[in-house]
Amino acid sequence: MIRVAVFGATGYTGLELVGILARHPAVEIRFLVSGSQAGRSLRAVHPAAPDLPLVGAAEAPLGAVDAVFLCLPHGQSARTAAAALQAGARVIDLSADYRLRDAAEYEAWYQAPHPHPELLSEAVYGLTEACRAYLPEARLVANPGCYPTSILLPLWPLLEAGALTGTVIADSKSGVSGAGRIPKVGTLYAELAENFYPYGIGQTHRHWPEMRQEMNGWSAAAPELVFAPHLLPVTRGMLSTLHLELAAGWDLDRARLTLESRYATEAFVRVLPPGEAASLAHVARTNRCVIGVHAAGPANRLVLTSALDNLVKGASGQAVQNFNVMFGLPETQGLVA
Amino acid sequence: MIRVAVFGATGYTGLELVGILARHPAVEIRFLVSGSQAGRSLRAVHPAAPDLPLVGAAEAPLGAVDAVFLCLPHGQSARTAAAALQAGARVIDLSADYRLRDAAEYEAWYQAPHPHPELLSEAVYGLTEACRAYLPEARLVANPGCYPTSILLPLWPLLEAGALTGTVIADSKSGVSGAGRIPKVGTLYAELAENFYPYGIGQTHRHWPEMRQEMNGWSAAAPELVFAPHLLPVTRGMLSTLHLELAAGWDLDRARLTLESRYATEAFVRVLPPGEAASLAHVARTNRCVIGVHAAGPANRLVLTSALDNLVKGASGQAVQNFNVMFGLPETQGLVA
Amino acid sequence: MIRVAVFGATGYTGLELVGILARHPAVEIRFLVSGSQAGRSLRAVHPAAPDLPLVGAAEAPLGAVDAVFLCLPHGQSARTAAAALQAGARVIDLSADYRLRDAAEYEAWYQAPHPHPELLSEAVYGLTEACRAYLPEARLVANPGCYPTSILLPLWPLLEAGALTGTVIADSKSGVSGAGRIPKVGTLYAELAENFYPYGIGQTHRHWPEMRQEMNGWSAAAPELVFAPHLLPVTRGMLSTLHLELAAGWDLDRARLTLESRYATEAFVRVLPPGEAASLAHVARTNRCVIGVHAAGPANRLVLTSALDNLVKGASGQAVQNFNVMFGLPETQGLVA
Amino acid sequence: MIRVAVFGATGYTGLELVGILARHPAVEIRFLVSGSQAGRSLRAVHPAAPDLPLVGAAEAPLGAVDAVFLCLPHGQSARTAAAALQAGARVIDLSADYRLRDAAEYEAWYQAPHPHPELLSEAVYGLTEACRAYLPEARLVANPGCYPTSILLPLWPLLEAGALTGTVIADSKSGVSGAGRIPKVGTLYAELAENFYPYGIGQTHRHWPEMRQEMNGWSAAAPELVFAPHLLPVTRGMLSTLHLELAAGWDLDRARLTLESRYATEAFVRVLPPGEAASLAHVARTNRCVIGVHAAGPANRLVLTSALDNLVKGASGQAVQNFNVMFGLPETQGLVA
Repeated sequence: MIRVAVFGATGYTGLELVGILARHPAVEIRFLVSGSQAGRSLRAVHPAAPDLPLVGAAEAPLGAVDAVFLCLPHGQSARTAAAALQAGARVIDLSADYRLRDAAEYEAWYQAPHPHPELLSEAVYGLTEACRAYLPEARLVANPGCYPTSILLPLWPLLEAGALTGTVIADSKSGVSGAGRIPKVGTLYAELAENFYPYGIGQTHRHWPEMRQEMNGWSAAAPELVFAPHLLPVTRGMLSTLHLELAAGWDLDRARLTLESRYATEAFVRVLPPGEAASLAHVARTNRCVIGVHAAGPANRLVLTSALDNLVKGASGQAVQNFNVMFGLPETQGLVA
Repeated sequence: MIRVAVFGATGYTGLELVGILARHPAVEIRFLVSGSQAGRSLRAVHPAAPDLPLVGAAEAPLGAVDAVFLCLPHGQSARTAAAALQAGARVIDLSADYRLRDAAEYEAWYQAPHPHPELLSEAVYGLTEACRAYLPEARLVANPGCYPTSILLPLWPLLEAGALTGTVIADSKSGVSGAGRIPKVGTLYAELAENFYPYGIGQTHRHWPEMRQEMNGWSAAAPELVFAPHLLPVTRGMLSTLHLELAAGWDLDRARLTLESRYATEAFVRVLPPGEAASLAHVARTNRCVIGVHAAGPANRLVLTSALDNLVKGASGQAVQNFNVMFGLPETQGLVA
Repeated sequence: MIRVAVFGATGYTGLELVGILARHPAVEIRFLVSGSQAGRSLRAVHPAAPDLPLVGAAEAPLGAVDAVFLCLPHGQSARTAAAALQAGARVIDLSADYRLRDAAEYEAWYQAPHPHPELLSEAVYGLTEACRAYLPEARLVANPGCYPTSILLPLWPLLEAGALTGTVIADSKSGVSGAGRIPKVGTLYAELAENFYPYGIGQTHRHWPEMRQEMNGWSAAAPELVFAPHLLPVTRGMLSTLHLELAAGWDLDRARLTLESRYATEAFVRVLPPGEAASLAHVARTNRCVIGVHAAGPANRLVLTSALDNLVKGASGQAVQNFNVMFGLPETQGLVA
Repeated sequence: MIRVAVFGATGYTGLELVGILARHPAVEIRFLVSGSQAGRSLRAVHPAAPDLPLVGAAEAPLGAVDAVFLCLPHGQSARTAAAALQAGARVIDLSADYRLRDAAEYEAWYQAPHPHPELLSEAVYGLTEACRAYLPEARLVANPGCYPTSILLPLWPLLEAGALTGTVIADSKSGVSGAGRIPKVGTLYAELAENFYPYGIGQTHRHWPEMRQEMNGWSAAAPELVFAPHLLPVTRGMLSTLHLELAAGWDLDRARLTLESRYATEAFVRVLPPGEAASLAHVARTNRCVIGVHAAGPANRLVLTSALDNLVKGASGQAVQNFNVMFGLPETQGLVA
C-alpha cells in the first residue's frame, strides 16, 4: 500500500480527490489536512465524504507518507511542497505554483515572488498523456489546470505535427466547482442558476501563460492563443470549443487521423466518431476527455470540441493518473475510463 | 407621486422591491440605502437593477419621504422604523421585528430585547387580505414572512370558520433566495443544484411563533402546528403542502366552498379548480397565491397546496400591496395579479 | 461469473442498472434488450453508457442466462418474467407487476387483469433489509418502487415494534428521472427547471397500495397512510418527510433507538446523528438510504426524513443488492455503500 | 385599440408573445389559434398564461384583425401569411419563411419549394434597429431568428463601417426554450440539467444563411462567418461570443466608439462599460440586447459579447417592437427596456 496525504481536503478538488483515493485499492490515506476544519471529520464538511479525521498542518507527519497531494492556494502550496520533498515524500501539486517554469513569469502573474524558484526546473507539467515518460522519476509534479487540460489535449498532437497556424480561439465553458468552495456572491445558486457569462477574456486569465508555455514547447511556430472562459450553471464539467486555422497541406481528414492515431491507445482520451460533438454527459464523474472533430465550413479552418470533468481529468483524477504512473501502478487504477 | 425610500436595497428582497417600485406609476423613489454598497449604483450590484444611487444610512433624509420600506436585519430594522416614524414617514417593515406582538416572545426567539416594544401594539400584521381594514390608518406595517404568507392564506378562512381540529402539518418548500444574498457555503450553486433538504423541523423555525400567533388570533381553538421547511434548488418560489384534519361536520366540498367564497373577489388569491395542484409555475414573478384543494383519502382529512413567489407575495410584492392600501391607491397598482 | 440480461436497457432505470452490472466483478452481461433501439449500441442511446449491443426481445436467448432484470412497462414485464422463469432464469422485476400479492387489487390499480396471477404468491417483495431471508431461494423478486423504499425503510422497524398510531403522512419529493425517458411536455427542462409541484395526492398513486400492503403485513394495527408525492427539479434523488403519531409509551428517544438498533449492522441504511436531516447530497449515486429523526414539537409526534437515490436504492441498486443475496454474493458487491 | 391575432399560441414563443400582448395598452387580442389545443383555454396549456380561448385555424376570422403574429412551423407559416395579407391584415412572421430573400436558397435550406416566392421581395427583415425606416409601410415583416439577432446587432455597426476582415467566429450559447415545446429526449430535464453541448457547428445551421445574407447586405466585403451554437442548461437567454479580426486602421477604442455612437439613442441596445461582459442576468425577461467590448490580446483582434433573452428580443419582444413601429405606436410600448 502506498501511503498518501491530502492537504486542502475540504475544497471541491480535495473532496473529489479523497473520494477517489478512498476507493483506490493500492492507497492508504494516512492523513488529511485542513486549515480551517482541523479536528472535525471530513463527513461533517460534506455528507457524502468518507468519515475521516482532519488534522491541522502543524500536526501533519510529512515523513510518514510516500506521496503528498496539495489542493492549496498558490504560494502556500509551493512552501508545503518544499517541506514535503524535504521530508522525503513525492509531491503532486494541484495548485498553479510549479506550472510556470519561469520564476519571473510566475511573479508577473501571481504578484509575488516564487517561494521556491530552485524547484521549478525539476517540476514535471503533469498532462499525463504528454509527460508520461518523465513521471516514474519525478519527485514533483505540477498538475495542469482544468482549462489547459481541456485545451492542450486536443491541441498537442496537432501542434507537434505542425498542423496549425494563425490564431487559436479557445472558447471554453466551465462548471462552477472550478471557482472553489469559498462562499462568494457570484457563485451563489440564486446568482448562477439560469445565468451564464464570460470572464477573463483574451490573454488575462492565469491559465493563459500556462497554455502558451506548453504550446511553445511543442511547436517552434505555435499559433497565437486567444482564450475566452465562461461560467456555466452546472456544478462540474468543462467544454472547450476550439476554432483553428490549418497550415498549408492540412485538412479535416488529416487532422482527424492525427488525433485518432495519437490517442488510439490512450485509456482516457477518446476521439469521437464523425458527426458527434463533445458534451458534458460524455465525461461527468469520469477521468475521460472526449474530442469531437468538426468542419468549420472554410476548408482551411477546423473546429474541435473537447469535454472533461473539471474535478476529475481537470484536477483530481489526472492527479491520481499521474500518481499511478509515478508509483508504477496500472495507470487506470482507481479511475473511471 | 408618493415619495418612498428603501433601506437594504441590495439583498434579494430589496432588489425585487426596487424593481417593483421603479415601475410603479404612483411612486417616486427618493433614495435607496445600503450599509455596505453606499456610493455605488444599484446596477453595479446587480446587472438587471435600475441605475439608481445607493446612499449610507447616515445620509438618508428620512423627513423627505412619505413611506419607508425596510429590508434590514432584525434589530436594526426596529430601530430604523422608530426613526422613520419619528421623522413622519409611514413604515413597511419587511423584517420580523414587528410581527410578534409580545416583547417577551420576541426576546425568546431573537435572543435580544426588542429595541422598541412601545411600537408593538400599533404594528399591523400585514397579511393584506386579512388586515386590509386596518391599513389606511396604519403608521407601521409588519410585512409577514414568506412561509407564514403561504400557510396562513389557505388556513385563515378555514380557521375562522372552525373547520380544523387536531394538528396542522405544514410541509413547506422554499426557493433559496429566501436565504439571502450574504454568501454562505450552503447556498452556493455547487451545494444546492441537484440537492434538496429540510431544516428547522418541528417548532424551531422563527416563522413558527408568527404563524401560531395569527392562528390563535383567528380561532379560540386553533389546531397545533407542526412545521417542516425545506430548501429547493430553485431561486424563487415557495410551495406549502398542508395536511389537515377536519372538524366534525366538515368535508372537502364545504372546505372548498369556504375558500372559494372568501377569495372570490381577491385579485391576488386564486383557488384552483378541482384536480389542479399548486405549482411554482403558477406564481413566479407575480403577486399571486394559488391554492389547490385535494382529497386526502380519509374523509376527515384534507390536503391543501399553496404556492407563491417568496420574493413577491412572500415579501416585496405584498409590501407594495400593503403600501397601495395604506395610501389609498388601487390595490393592484404596480403588481402582477 | 453469473450470466445476466437486462430487458428495457435504454430507460433511466435500465441505463443505471447496466452501468452497475458492467462494473460488477461477478457478473457477465450476456445481452441487453430494447424494443425500440435494437441493433444499435447502448452508447448511441446515451454517451456515457457502455458500448454494448442492443437486441430485440425475439432474439433474446433466455436460456443462456442465470438471471434476468426487467425494466419494462407493467403487463409486458409480467409476461417476460413468466417466459424467463420457464427458460430457467431467475427474475428480478423492477416493474410493479409482482408487487401486489392480490390479483384483484392489481386489476383495480392497473386497469387490466394480471397476465400471470399464478406467480403472485411466490414473488418476494424485494425490500432487501426486510426480505433478506427469502432471497436465496427466490425465483422471482418484485423490486419495490422508489417511493415505497424511501418510506418503508424508516417505517418498518417502528411498525413492527408497534410504535405508530393514527395517520402516517408521507410527504415525498422525487427527482424527475423517476418519470422515465419517454418525452413528455411535463418533464422538459423548460417546464421543470425553477418549478416544483405535487401530483397524485392522497391515496391515488399506484405506489400507495404497495405501501399499504407491506404496512399491513408488518402490523395488525397499521396506521392509515396519506401520501403526497412531489416532483423536484433534480435528475435523481428522493426525499420523504414522514409526519408520524407515536403510540402510548413511545417518544423520540425510544423511536430513535429502535431505528438505530435495527439498522446498526446494515451496510446501506444509516440513521443520522441527532440534529442532522437527510439530504439528497447524502445519497446521490450510492445505494444508501439515510434516515433523520426529528422532534415534531408535540411529544406524541415524530418527524422522520429519509433520502435515497431513486435510480439506485430506489431501483437498480436495490435490484443488484437483491441479486447479490439471491446468488450468494457479498451483499455490497458492485454497489456504493 | 389595434386588433391582433396569434397563430401558434401554445409554443414557448407563442406563450411569451401572448403574455406581452395581453399587457400591451394599445392592443386587443381578438383570437388565438392552436392546431392541437383548439377548444381549450391557453391557461390549461400553461398555468401562468392568460385565461383566453384557443380556436382552430379554420375558425380564425382573419378579416377581423389589423395584425397577425405567426409562431408556426416553416411552410405552414408562409401559407398563413399569404392568407392573412389577402384578408387585409399586416403580418409579423416569427418563423423563418420570409427571412431569406432568395427562393432557391430557401429551397436548399428547407428542402421544399417556397409556397409564396412572390412575397419574398416585399418582406422586411425585422431587425428593428436596422430596418426601422421600412416598417411603417411594411405589410409583411420577417422577424429575425434569435441567434441572428444576438450576432447581427453587435456586427451591424462594425460591418457598415468596414471595421472587420478575415473570419467572424460566432460562438453562441442558447437556452433550451429555443428548441420548442414539442417533447424530445434531448430537451428533457434529466438530459439537459448539468449538461452542455454544441450542435450544428460550422455553416450547417439554418440561421447561418440568414446571417450571411444580412452581412453581405451591409458590406461588399463582409468577412466569412463560422458559427458554433451550443445548448445551455437554462430555459431562456442567449449569449454570443464574437471573435473578430479588425481591418487596417481599426482598434478596440475605435470599435467601441462606433458601437456606442450607433446605439446611444436606442432604448433596447446597451453597450456595456469597459470591463463589463454580457450575461444572461442582464437581459432575462427584457427586450434588451447588451454588448460587451473586450481586448482579445493581439491588437488586430477584438472580442464582443452579446446577450439577449431568446424569447423576447430574440423572438416575441422584437416582434412587438416591430409591430409598434409598424402601427405608429411608441416603440417601447408594452416592452421592458
